[in-house]
Amino acid sequence: MKLSEERLKKYRNLRRDFKEDRYINLNPIQRGGVLTAEAREALAEFGDGYSTCDWCPAKTPRLDKVTRPPIADFVEDLAEFLGMDVARVVTRCREAQFIAFRMLGRPGDVVVIDSLAHYSTYVAAELAMMKIKEVPNSGYPEFRVDLDAYAAKIEEVKRETGKLPAVVVLTHVDYLYGNLNDARRVAEIAHEYEVPFLLNAAYTAGVMPIDGRELGADIITGSGHKSWAASASTGVLALTKEMAKRVLAPSQIVGDLTGRKFSIKEYALLGCTVMGGPLISMMASFPHVVERVERWPEEVENARWLVEQLERIEGTRQLGVRPKDHTLIHMESEGLYEVSRHHKRRGFFLYEELRDRGIVGIQPGLTKHFKLNTYGLSRERIEKVAEAFLEIAEKYGLSISK
Amino acid sequence: MKLSEERLKKYRNLRRDFKEDRYINLNPIQRGGVLTAEAREALAEFGDGYSTCDWCPAKTPRLDKVTRPPIADFVEDLAEFLGMDVARVVTRCREAQFIAFRMLGRPGDVVVIDSLAHYSTYVAAELAMMKIKEVPNSGYPEFRVDLDAYAAKIEEVKRETGKLPAVVVLTHVDYLYGNLNDARRVAEIAHEYEVPFLLNAAYTAGVMPIDGRELGADIITGSGHKSWAASASTGVLALTKEMAKRVLAPSQIVGDLTGRKFSIKEYALLGCTVMGGPLISMMASFPHVVERVERWPEEVENARWLVEQLERIEGTRQLGVRPKDHTLIHMESEGLYEVSRHHKRRGFFLYEELRDRGIVGIQPGLTKHFKLNTYGLSRERIEKVAEAFLEIAEKYGLSISK
Repeated sequence: MKLSEERLKKYRNLRRDFKEDRYINLNPIQRGGVLTAEAREALAEFGDGYSTCDWCPAKTPRLDKVTRPPIADFVEDLAEFLGMDVARVVTRCREAQFIAFRMLGRPGDVVVIDSLAHYSTYVAAELAMMKIKEVPNSGYPEFRVDLDAYAAKIEEVKRETGKLPAVVVLTHVDYLYGNLNDARRVAEIAHEYEVPFLLNAAYTAGVMPIDGRELGADIITGSGHKSWAASASTGVLALTKEMAKRVLAPSQIVGDLTGRKFSIKEYALLGCTVMGGPLISMMASFPHVVERVERWPEEVENARWLVEQLERIEGTRQLGVRPKDHTLIHMESEGLYEVSRHHKRRGFFLYEELRDRGIVGIQPGLTKHFKLNTYGLSRERIEKVAEAFLEIAEKYGLSISK
Repeated sequence: MKLSEERLKKYRNLRRDFKEDRYINLNPIQRGGVLTAEAREALAEFGDGYSTCDWCPAKTPRLDKVTRPPIADFVEDLAEFLGMDVARVVTRCREAQFIAFRMLGRPGDVVVIDSLAHYSTYVAAELAMMKIKEVPNSGYPEFRVDLDAYAAKIEEVKRETGKLPAVVVLTHVDYLYGNLNDARRVAEIAHEYEVPFLLNAAYTAGVMPIDGRELGADIITGSGHKSWAASASTGVLALTKEMAKRVLAPSQIVGDLTGRKFSIKEYALLGCTVMGGPLISMMASFPHVVERVERWPEEVENARWLVEQLERIEGTRQLGVRPKDHTLIHMESEGLYEVSRHHKRRGFFLYEELRDRGIVGIQPGLTKHFKLNTYGLSRERIEKVAEAFLEIAEKYGLSISK
């Protein structure tokens, strides 16, 4: 149906409010996905729909076999960078999880997950027709996942269903508190029971060094737009050789009339996956990513420094494990919350005061609990953030410790 | 693991060989995915990973609820443009098909498909643990799908499995011959049996006018990077209200320990889908797409004219239904094939002769059968293509009819 210009004009001249050059953006999910200059250029170059398919090989028509641009090399380099044997770029980290669940289990099977897992882990299991069993965490204020409890949970599944779980999942760093978990401990337990171990590294792979072999991961899932300086939507699925055989199984469906077969295609990926601009942006950022993970200790240092500054504000403290081992920070502030109760803009005052100081990314309306992420920000910008918070606190009469 | 600069340098300065301004690209899958100038600008603006999530609403955190940029409006406008009730942008047309299969059937159920369906329809069924039953086509040289045979195939499924197929699929225009099928006929049959009818409009929606209501489609799937002047990877899933209830069902999984629920999330979509640059490119191109589908008759005229010219070459004819109702063209040329048998570059001569004339997109190595697509090319450029072919044919001694 033909739509009116009145209705279409809103799609003309689409502009983003918060760009890196104009604002300091603390959005907890966004810091690792800011493009490099190289990715911006490559994105423009390969913007057209099927731009990466110009040289699709006729005999092995599949995205990861394309050598111009060097996609075939990229999936190999990506695997090696993560200490894994095989890698694929898929459409999202959640799709990578779904693919693993779907291929390693059967409807009705159980996936054991940590109780701080992102919702996407739950719905990936749901789409794969599987059940979940959660591993507890210690609750307020540390919210530490009880890694040893994975053994008991695996036993529970065995008792309740008569079979082992299909997969054991650990969220390497969770989205709520930014706690870093010891993957090796869970790998040990999973392997004692011979259950595949999936490490969801959406917040770690691409920003900090990850060696899947050292961590004992059978599968690593990651997110390009979250942690690889790539455009959306991009996910990483990295596997050991053994897992690749199962997860990347070739299509076996046969046309009942025509006999058509598609054995070159990895059917859990639906054949080709994410291509064009987003894939290229990830490839163009890759040299930068390989280098930036080495600077992780400085990033953590910056996060710890900011926490220290924010905790100078009356009634304010960091939640989650202390000290921080990651740049995603969850703050609790009774002080700022008290201010909001009497402010005419209520909880929105904090967001607005920050925005007026060129700082965005804290969720509008929140004061008592809010999250932020310092990844990739210069020390100078982080100092500006600290100053802004302290200034706002002072303005509203909160005391600031030395 | 740290990779060497030697290994990383191939990712620096990624460049595309075939850009619109330098070449006439006839690649059969690429013509409808060439970006508009508006999409190029928007892509640069929203390149960063989570760029479209700055204003994710706290109470309904879901991509299609975002109003800045106007994503919420876009999914509504998209549905209306296609004559459907509800639409979502997903990661690929094949994912849209998988989502529909997964949500409308159960493992072991059958999907009835046309025998010219793209491989992605087969593997989407495979991933959904479903079987397929193919509807025959007339074979060489027309390859016309026998639409009336859908009824017999539905009956066959009923007889063999004791239940109706979960979905009936018609590929609106197929990727092999570019034949346009009468969707209404299949809709009628499917509805007689009360089986949902999915129209795969990857080659039609976005380039020609589509009215789902008029065609009787319960579900329309489409491809942004193929036919909406959008970056990869983008797919369209458009539904009637009734289908939306089933296909976009909210998540029902519950954390066994925590009681966590995610009922705002559409679990078959895994919550949020394709966002950032590719989604924005599709939105920015939308006003252009709404307008360009009105020019479809001229596009078909251009395709027919080129066929007429190519058929002047000795031993050359168009395969598929005649005259063309679509811009995707499959040519058969005994003449060019004969030349290739004696040429030192064998089948590659045609590709190379064309490339030397600034024309790309015919698969390297092919002469006897090759595909091309004229969509969106000016008449002047199409004339250049005709001239090039005739010149090459003449050069190698093939006769050219008047």
